[in-house]
Amino acid sequence: MSQASKLALNADELSAYLAEVFPSVWADFEIDAITDDSATVRLRVEDAHLRPGGTVSGPSIFALADLAAYVMVLGRIGRQALAVTTNCSIDFLRKPRSGVDLIGRCRLLKMGRALAVCDVLICSEGDDRPVARASLTYSIPPAASAAARAG
Amino acid sequence: MSQASKLALNADELSAYLAEVFPSVWADFEIDAITDDSATVRLRVEDAHLRPGGTVSGPSIFALADLAAYVMVLGRIGRQALAVTTNCSIDFLRKPRSGVDLIGRCRLLKMGRALAVCDVLICSEGDDRPVARASLTYSIPPAASAAARAG
Amino acid sequence: MSQASKLALNADELSAYLAEVFPSVWADFEIDAITDDSATVRLRVEDAHLRPGGTVSGPSIFALADLAAYVMVLGRIGRQALAVTTNCSIDFLRKPRSGVDLIGRCRLLKMGRALAVCDVLICSEGDDRPVARASLTYSIPPAASAAARAG
Amino acid sequence: MSQASKLALNADELSAYLAEVFPSVWADFEIDAITDDSATVRLRVEDAHLRPGGTVSGPSIFALADLAAYVMVLGRIGRQALAVTTNCSIDFLRKPRSGVDLIGRCRLLKMGRALAVCDVLICSEGDDRPVARASLTYSIPPAASAAARAG
Repeated sequence: MSQASKLALNADELSAYLAEVFPSVWADFEIDAITDDSATVRLRVEDAHLRPGGTVSGPSIFALADLAAYVMVLGRIGRQALAVTTNCSIDFLRKPRSGVDLIGRCRLLKMGRALAVCDVLICSEGDDRPVARASLTYSIPPAASAAARAG
Repeated sequence: MSQASKLALNADELSAYLAEVFPSVWADFEIDAITDDSATVRLRVEDAHLRPGGTVSGPSIFALADLAAYVMVLGRIGRQALAVTTNCSIDFLRKPRSGVDLIGRCRLLKMGRALAVCDVLICSEGDDRPVARASLTYSIPPAASAAARAG
Repeated sequence: MSQASKLALNADELSAYLAEVFPSVWADFEIDAITDDSATVRLRVEDAHLRPGGTVSGPSIFALADLAAYVMVLGRIGRQALAVTTNCSIDFLRKPRSGVDLIGRCRLLKMGRALAVCDVLICSEGDDRPVARASLTYSIPPAASAAARAG
Repeated sequence: MSQASKLALNADELSAYLAEVFPSVWADFEIDAITDDSATVRLRVEDAHLRPGGTVSGPSIFALADLAAYVMVLGRIGRQALAVTTNCSIDFLRKPRSGVDLIGRCRLLKMGRALAVCDVLICSEGDDRPVARASLTYSIPPAASAAARAG
């Protein structure tokens, strides 16, 4: 007998929702996996994300961290475009490898009434040494919080 | 008798350098002012920076904070594309006003041999309530650090 | 005609409250000033705060940043021991001068319903170069938030 | 044939060194384990660490995060009291359980020439839900960095 999932949306439902609300942004991203307390999101690195020299830009790495956390939070609270990032602390650790995707692995550390806190480790595909780490706080709209508690 | 400036580059020289090394990125930004320990950088908000609903995207706000600090650091150390962001902590405080530019005001808190630390307050033009605040650390390449100490 | 203060408690009332709820902690601190959107708090440096070599310990500097923000938040929401720190990002910039107090200057950047965000610049008394900077988020209990909106 | 350890000091050597250089601070802490890229440090919670209501104080939790990272860094670079914290970002997630120790689990994310970056997850003993998470950057003195590269 399996334990009930705490997810409100699965990977396909999340992808469809993000493509609907953030069409131009989401086109570069993909959900590799999601569980009750983790999410793996991929940035398909294109020329638009690169700085001279072939490295992925800081804002693109930030965007991956932010979206990995957003996928995790929406996965738990459902279709709530109003969940907003209130804080992000990010360390840039190494130059990404050129020519490969970036993978963001998010852990959900707290799913509270008002705030959700995640951390995200970002690596170049095929390389375990982290390119960046980030921690993010999302503010949850009261309606979503109430629904999550009722559900 | 005026005190000698500690700046290695003035606003025009910085703009020319950034347009040269980051042409696609820098096109959206402008230096309003720079002194020995402060820099004001403007994001000319265009449709590409917006999320549905008209708010400026998180990665665009992050990019403004990062560039305001980069302008400050390059202003002090000169043409050193290799200065890199190692850490950024950013708080998102309010939705930006629609239809106006974002202004990032950077203070240089420490200009050390290996590290420079800045904070940046970001407001919508014409509104004093901050949209975001960020603190950033830049790692300074050894050659630039040696030149700055010799200079 | 003067504008009404937004403060729920003045410096004396705050000192009395903190001495009551955190007697052993507050003994080392003092409020130098508080306004609607700023607070200045002093750490009277004693041997207990020092590391070998005479520098003030990291946890003591953290405690000053946290208390300066707490004083600011309580000044606005009143006697609410339940306001809690949810995030702090702190940069350690310089060794403090020995034999003098540390001064923490807090700016209130946002006083929202659920969250308050501050930053704090910490200097050795008589020296303008910052020893540390910190940004802090406090979570506000719902009752205090309702009272503040009604007030 | 086993791979050579990258550690310059083992747990006993680290404990002896910390008791020597930070006698009053280290008395409350203990190293549970250390590997090439992880360290587990325990805060033996005493009355001095508590706030009214029985919760562990913020500065005590900060001190545990900072010491877990310091143990990790010294384990790699050897006896170098001069390694200093330059940045810490910490999220406070839950009230610790009363009457039990706090355990800080540190991961080494980057051991560079000039900077080491770690994150630390802090839990009450016997409870997997994190009380706090922190990320920390240490600045490495040049001599230690050179020795580590030669070693």
